[in-house]
Amino acid sequence: MGIINDITLTPLKIIPAGSGEVMHALKNSETSFHGFGEAYFSTVSNHTAKGWKRHLRMISNLIVPSGRIRFILYDDRPASSSFSVVQEIILSKENYQRLTVPPGIWMAFEGLSDETNMLLNISSIPHDPTEAESLPLKNDIIPFAGFE
Amino acid sequence: MGIINDITLTPLKIIPAGSGEVMHALKNSETSFHGFGEAYFSTVSNHTAKGWKRHLRMISNLIVPSGRIRFILYDDRPASSSFSVVQEIILSKENYQRLTVPPGIWMAFEGLSDETNMLLNISSIPHDPTEAESLPLKNDIIPFAGFE
Repeated sequence: MGIINDITLTPLKIIPAGSGEVMHALKNSETSFHGFGEAYFSTVSNHTAKGWKRHLRMISNLIVPSGRIRFILYDDRPASSSFSVVQEIILSKENYQRLTVPPGIWMAFEGLSDETNMLLNISSIPHDPTEAESLPLKNDIIPFAGFE
Repeated sequence: MGIINDITLTPLKIIPAGSGEVMHALKNSETSFHGFGEAYFSTVSNHTAKGWKRHLRMISNLIVPSGRIRFILYDDRPASSSFSVVQEIILSKENYQRLTVPPGIWMAFEGLSDETNMLLNISSIPHDPTEAESLPLKNDIIPFAGFE
């Protein structure tokens, strides 16, 4: 486990607002913003994982407003000084941060709560299957055995 | 109760994806998209309401990925052919649609579920208190007595 270059975590505010809360996600003036392609939610059941996936062009901005999600990232960019580094990040309302992931990073994520484990991705380009690659959770390329 | 001009509802897809779902919110190619200013979440407790609020410039795109929220909209635009019309819309995963609200419409919303009642607003401009007006839930301007 280590720290991957170009991956950023940005603390986000949760503001009490009457009988509820306002929870920030992303503003167009922030450095994490790289254009708006699409916003979508992805949910994952407790103790199960989705991945691996790597984008060739998309920059992802990931926020977890519900539940608890463990992200595993793997830097497979040969020119990166953090090449072959694996990084783990757990996000939830208790650790409410925005995770910005550049292209070229393999990512998988796992639900850690009995509540709805939900992420919002505000991505720089709309969904395009031709710019994404997938691998099964167990494979011979990513040196991480953390998913059952 | 009626139908207000310029307010649109767009059905959104929920796609089973392994041990979870992918839930669409907004793409930059859709007609509801009017630029990206900010994305934020707002939660509201069951049986309680937030509002009223009216924006002078912001176009809101509202999606409810968790819980159940009742929106009440009031058209206070004198030049509108639906002037003084009140409209109610209830959104949830069971009625998973995107509600697009133009400037000039008063809006309030109420939580209807014991789960987390949560909306995502993808707004055309970032939060700016100078372009929003507020009224208490009970007031002499909006002819709607539906909130306790």
